[in-house]
Amino acid sequence: MFGLSERSQQYLGRVKAFMKEHVYPVEAEILAEITQKYGHANWREWQVPSKIEALKEKAKAEGLWNLFLPDSDLAAGLSTSEYAPLAEEMGRSVIAPEIFNCNAPDTGNMEVLYHFGTEAQKETWLAPLLRGEIRSVFGMTEPQVASSDATNMETRIIADGDEVVITGRKWWTTGLGHPNAKVAIVMGLTDPDADRHQRHSMVLVPLDAEGVNIERMLSVFGDYDAPYGHGEVSFDNVRVPKSNVIGKLGAGFAIAQGRLGPGRIHHCMRALGAAERSLELMITRGMSRVAFGQPLLKLGDNGTRVAKHRMAIDQARLYTMYTAGVIDSAGVRAAASEIAGIKAVVPTVLQNVVDDAIQIHGGGGLSHDYMLTAFYAVARALRLADGPDEVHQAMVLREELKKYRQDKS
Amino acid sequence: MFGLSERSQQYLGRVKAFMKEHVYPVEAEILAEITQKYGHANWREWQVPSKIEALKEKAKAEGLWNLFLPDSDLAAGLSTSEYAPLAEEMGRSVIAPEIFNCNAPDTGNMEVLYHFGTEAQKETWLAPLLRGEIRSVFGMTEPQVASSDATNMETRIIADGDEVVITGRKWWTTGLGHPNAKVAIVMGLTDPDADRHQRHSMVLVPLDAEGVNIERMLSVFGDYDAPYGHGEVSFDNVRVPKSNVIGKLGAGFAIAQGRLGPGRIHHCMRALGAAERSLELMITRGMSRVAFGQPLLKLGDNGTRVAKHRMAIDQARLYTMYTAGVIDSAGVRAAASEIAGIKAVVPTVLQNVVDDAIQIHGGGGLSHDYMLTAFYAVARALRLADGPDEVHQAMVLREELKKYRQDKS
Amino acid sequence: MFGLSERSQQYLGRVKAFMKEHVYPVEAEILAEITQKYGHANWREWQVPSKIEALKEKAKAEGLWNLFLPDSDLAAGLSTSEYAPLAEEMGRSVIAPEIFNCNAPDTGNMEVLYHFGTEAQKETWLAPLLRGEIRSVFGMTEPQVASSDATNMETRIIADGDEVVITGRKWWTTGLGHPNAKVAIVMGLTDPDADRHQRHSMVLVPLDAEGVNIERMLSVFGDYDAPYGHGEVSFDNVRVPKSNVIGKLGAGFAIAQGRLGPGRIHHCMRALGAAERSLELMITRGMSRVAFGQPLLKLGDNGTRVAKHRMAIDQARLYTMYTAGVIDSAGVRAAASEIAGIKAVVPTVLQNVVDDAIQIHGGGGLSHDYMLTAFYAVARALRLADGPDEVHQAMVLREELKKYRQDKS
Amino acid sequence: MFGLSERSQQYLGRVKAFMKEHVYPVEAEILAEITQKYGHANWREWQVPSKIEALKEKAKAEGLWNLFLPDSDLAAGLSTSEYAPLAEEMGRSVIAPEIFNCNAPDTGNMEVLYHFGTEAQKETWLAPLLRGEIRSVFGMTEPQVASSDATNMETRIIADGDEVVITGRKWWTTGLGHPNAKVAIVMGLTDPDADRHQRHSMVLVPLDAEGVNIERMLSVFGDYDAPYGHGEVSFDNVRVPKSNVIGKLGAGFAIAQGRLGPGRIHHCMRALGAAERSLELMITRGMSRVAFGQPLLKLGDNGTRVAKHRMAIDQARLYTMYTAGVIDSAGVRAAASEIAGIKAVVPTVLQNVVDDAIQIHGGGGLSHDYMLTAFYAVARALRLADGPDEVHQAMVLREELKKYRQDKS
Repeated sequence: MFGLSERSQQYLGRVKAFMKEHVYPVEAEILAEITQKYGHANWREWQVPSKIEALKEKAKAEGLWNLFLPDSDLAAGLSTSEYAPLAEEMGRSVIAPEIFNCNAPDTGNMEVLYHFGTEAQKETWLAPLLRGEIRSVFGMTEPQVASSDATNMETRIIADGDEVVITGRKWWTTGLGHPNAKVAIVMGLTDPDADRHQRHSMVLVPLDAEGVNIERMLSVFGDYDAPYGHGEVSFDNVRVPKSNVIGKLGAGFAIAQGRLGPGRIHHCMRALGAAERSLELMITRGMSRVAFGQPLLKLGDNGTRVAKHRMAIDQARLYTMYTAGVIDSAGVRAAASEIAGIKAVVPTVLQNVVDDAIQIHGGGGLSHDYMLTAFYAVARALRLADGPDEVHQAMVLREELKKYRQDKS
Repeated sequence: MFGLSERSQQYLGRVKAFMKEHVYPVEAEILAEITQKYGHANWREWQVPSKIEALKEKAKAEGLWNLFLPDSDLAAGLSTSEYAPLAEEMGRSVIAPEIFNCNAPDTGNMEVLYHFGTEAQKETWLAPLLRGEIRSVFGMTEPQVASSDATNMETRIIADGDEVVITGRKWWTTGLGHPNAKVAIVMGLTDPDADRHQRHSMVLVPLDAEGVNIERMLSVFGDYDAPYGHGEVSFDNVRVPKSNVIGKLGAGFAIAQGRLGPGRIHHCMRALGAAERSLELMITRGMSRVAFGQPLLKLGDNGTRVAKHRMAIDQARLYTMYTAGVIDSAGVRAAASEIAGIKAVVPTVLQNVVDDAIQIHGGGGLSHDYMLTAFYAVARALRLADGPDEVHQAMVLREELKKYRQDKS
Repeated sequence: MFGLSERSQQYLGRVKAFMKEHVYPVEAEILAEITQKYGHANWREWQVPSKIEALKEKAKAEGLWNLFLPDSDLAAGLSTSEYAPLAEEMGRSVIAPEIFNCNAPDTGNMEVLYHFGTEAQKETWLAPLLRGEIRSVFGMTEPQVASSDATNMETRIIADGDEVVITGRKWWTTGLGHPNAKVAIVMGLTDPDADRHQRHSMVLVPLDAEGVNIERMLSVFGDYDAPYGHGEVSFDNVRVPKSNVIGKLGAGFAIAQGRLGPGRIHHCMRALGAAERSLELMITRGMSRVAFGQPLLKLGDNGTRVAKHRMAIDQARLYTMYTAGVIDSAGVRAAASEIAGIKAVVPTVLQNVVDDAIQIHGGGGLSHDYMLTAFYAVARALRLADGPDEVHQAMVLREELKKYRQDKS
Repeated sequence: MFGLSERSQQYLGRVKAFMKEHVYPVEAEILAEITQKYGHANWREWQVPSKIEALKEKAKAEGLWNLFLPDSDLAAGLSTSEYAPLAEEMGRSVIAPEIFNCNAPDTGNMEVLYHFGTEAQKETWLAPLLRGEIRSVFGMTEPQVASSDATNMETRIIADGDEVVITGRKWWTTGLGHPNAKVAIVMGLTDPDADRHQRHSMVLVPLDAEGVNIERMLSVFGDYDAPYGHGEVSFDNVRVPKSNVIGKLGAGFAIAQGRLGPGRIHHCMRALGAAERSLELMITRGMSRVAFGQPLLKLGDNGTRVAKHRMAIDQARLYTMYTAGVIDSAGVRAAASEIAGIKAVVPTVLQNVVDDAIQIHGGGGLSHDYMLTAFYAVARALRLADGPDEVHQAMVLREELKKYRQDKS
């Protein structure tokens, strides 16, 4: 098992047991409820199914809570590598991460507050987030510019006396439709004349602040991802106290960089959990449905595809686990190539296996009758979220070419 | 232009002009109306946007109507090859086929009635379909069996005196949610002991017949494709007069076979129209958005992908046009390999180009702000509809191996 | 058959009959002779197997000779489209093109002389080439520069009184090892200050001229392609009379451009013939060898691959035939995107099918026991010869983007 | 470095230093000597370049010798995981493995003798092999049957009194052309009626035994891989003493199984070394050659391909290292899926990167001027040697489906 620590193995066993006992049995029912009641754009009507709230309580009671956080007092103190297999396990069900209080973007936001927040910020926002009472969002991508280049960002965060004033528009702000979403961490341009990576700031903006207008929820292929949602939101001269700035003005990129590594691991491991689940669904269906006198899995190249997915998933998992290990042992910077690499590789591994799993499910695979479409949306969105594949490929290339420049010296 | 007839070129020019003048200018507005008003599962509330009805009238008035039908009196009498480029043009907009009364599955159903219907059937159903007053659906795929093997079909069509009794369940019945949908052509099993391809029948079933229950609409990745929809419908001892049988009992496969060839051409050419449109959107976006100081098209392998899509689309179009030519000149049977081949190839060509076009649009590409998600749903569904890719690949293989068996004799 | 002319069909039948009767029966024997006697780098010892010379006489006697040349007096006067299927047929055997006096680069060189040569040049060089008495080569690619960009060329062709002086080095000069090779058409830089496409010249250089040094033959993966060979040759102040210049000094690119279109068709159609032959070998072997109780073709995804190759070959052939048609009807310039496109597509189609054919032949497929390695060398070299894939992809992209610039005006 | 042991790291440093100091500087010269002197089928003339013999002595003197052998007395006692990175390092040059006495198939043969040989067999054969004085070969694949299914094997090994009699034909017997090759381990059928995996035996056959006829060397794409070679050899009633049987009659498969795991790791790690080297060559060339005003690496999708190769290599290495770890800690059987998986994945990773490296080298890449063609031959042959890709994919599938059958119990 790639040197998993005993502690990690133990937690993994407990999370697996919880999934088996509590999540899988009610998953279909909950997903059907979401599809039927909340499968529309009117996000103000969305609710968290009561079964999810109940499961949150149960997970919290069992100590399977906030496991992503590398702090021994506030959580279990697991390292990135130790948490990674748990994230995979949670990724096997789209409803699971919230149940364990480990869902994006709250995990990343909590990490930012944990590492860079003031005591006041922690008390006001981190504490209720860790208790799972509120949700948070992260405002990064903007509709008017190619946000793959973060320096294109046009939202302004301007100091004005004891306040900062936020003006601009963000979209694909995940979780914005959640009824418990209370606060946004917004990233924006403060000083266009500063050094390229010292121009931007991060600031905490309560979603009920004046001037914050949630315009709409965006769908992924027509699915609104209730009760989380991906929102478009405008900031019209929103004023918050300067104490809401995280770190200091101009520190946005530095903070974003730190947030980066573990978040990538989480995303990728969850995606691999979804990939494993999809492969299971593909195989189970392929063995049980019969055409032309044979189980589907024996027809055409279906069997070969299963083998190829197994090899792709195993490699992608090792790549991600290895990256987590480097982050833990040598830091984010040492893993620059790999952090980009896994982000360029894993979502496509998932997209490919779900696509094949859909195919073997026939028409049903396209519908919400199975969880494949949800996984497909995860995969397809993840190829853009947090930087498109192409940006990560370019980063891998850049890191590769650095080796040759160093040789010159 | 691959030997396009003068008549075909002329119609192509007129359809292009109509698209430019009447369809493209209102397309975004109509799609937004559909998304906002009808983007949900409550199909009984769906309406056809009034602008579409107006455009139907205009197309009919201009004689750009029923062009798919190879009859000189009822329509323009275009051959499959002559109509093919028009289908491509219509495929450039998801709203266009209905406007020209050329949308699936009505086209296929009208062809069935045209070739195999009785005079009474033609008068009752073909005539209003040709006038665009009503819509029809085709009940083929079933939820409980691998429908890629059509002989798995479990719906029963049993003669009982002057009536036939239909019992079973169909899904992915396209167009079932349309407010004008009035009749289904249902295929089912009549005589399980007959020769393998003489067991099934096709029968006309009015959708208001007793025992016909439209259970729900199915979504493709969460999109319900309003106002058409893909429905699940049960037939509970539905009784229709024997005169509703098309051809005769047991003739279902023979009729389906005849329906096959031109329908494939239509599907594939429309898909290629969508592919061309997607490539245009990809290029336009790629030239206008800037990241890292360059238009996106100059970054990474984006430009190379454009070239590859151009080559893939051009080849797929020639493949489809060639197939149409063989159908016209030598019949469906002579084109067996190619009819399967284009169905295995073209939807993936479309899926690939849309996927890349989405990618270059960033987050926006995933939303309904552009028409890319609609094209993506077309592509992904088409890889299953009318037989999955794998069945068509198997057919190409079978036809290939026949050459070697013939050599033995 | 895609509107093949009657004349073309008739010649096709005759070439097929010739191949069946005269070429296939002796092919293995001739290839074994070449492998055993000439499978080494000592090109001065290479001979043309006598059986080939005999077959040349027979083909000439039957009028299956110089069919590539679009002249009714000197040859059959076939258009590019009419000759294309004959080229495919000849491509099915690596020894066939020479037998029909239709092998590269002689065909291209003869076309150059035919279109641009003086009467004296025609008499001296074209006439014996058309009779198949001598062979010619084309000196283009150079070892010291990236020859994918032809303007990088460093060989100098300088006028000096009544003579021109050639100095430089060429490699991958195909056919240079052939015992009958007598003359090279050499392309080089004459005026570095002229307009970018008017700097280069083409000149006829007898291979026995003083200063012409054939340095060595280059192998493709270790195969020297005897008795043709790909040579490296240096020109050390080689002096030829000015009358050896083709067209005029500075006209090199213009002439190369004209040589381009039909040559691409020939290359690609021959490659498709090799692809068809490879697919046949793959299927025949796959049906006859048994493992784990099944013919190999039934195992894994072997069958699916056959289907995919069939679809790829058919599409690539239509693409090439269509391009030939545009060249014939509208000229090379009108087919710019397609001429680049087929060159980027077809060699890879061949490489893929040969690679799979090799795989199904097991170890034997890697050896010269079958003709697969020869086809593989053809494919792999063709992905570089006459411009690498990447240059052609870039050309397709450039042509595609032109459409958008035109819209601006 | 994935938990590499200190001992392994230390040896890795030493092997790297040896490669840098002694191998790379003479590599081109040695390869040119081999190409020029021994690039032909007349294997009886082949010699080991004297520089290689000198380097063998040096490596032996430095204790960089037999590192593959997990025995502390005879060698360094490295585990599979510890040796793996050294194998990668050696794989960077096709001449290196022999220099360190770590080349296939001698390594596998030595392991067989080490684990299963009698004292007499060890003294006679293992000892001189470990000293690097002689070479050995392994006779497995046969020309007349699909050897991907080893039970197809037709060579007979029959007991006859104190002797066993070997009759049959093997090919692709690697190393058979080496001047020092003295002995073959031959696998063949002893008892066709025994249990499927107890029918075969392994026996030591001196190459000078009567009835052993080396028929010829086979080329890979025309390259004979001198001074090793891949031979075809017939056994015509060859008699050897019964004491030459390894283990006992009928134990062939059991022994082969044990030989399997570490050998796969060696093959794959060497292939990854070749892949790294090829990627370096690709990048170095891509940065130094200029076309259209840019280094090649900046053109088209060349840069993206470098990134993709980096990600593919890194994943494949982790997959292989992980497999080595499982072998070391839990045995070959526990790693069944992975041992098959790496063999199905790694050779293609290498083939892809070499193919692209060749492409960026232009024509030169196809010749023996660079070592790319040698690496290409390694990759292509490895996709067949030791079981074709397809057999390994089928094995991965089989292992995957086992999980579902176990669930039933």
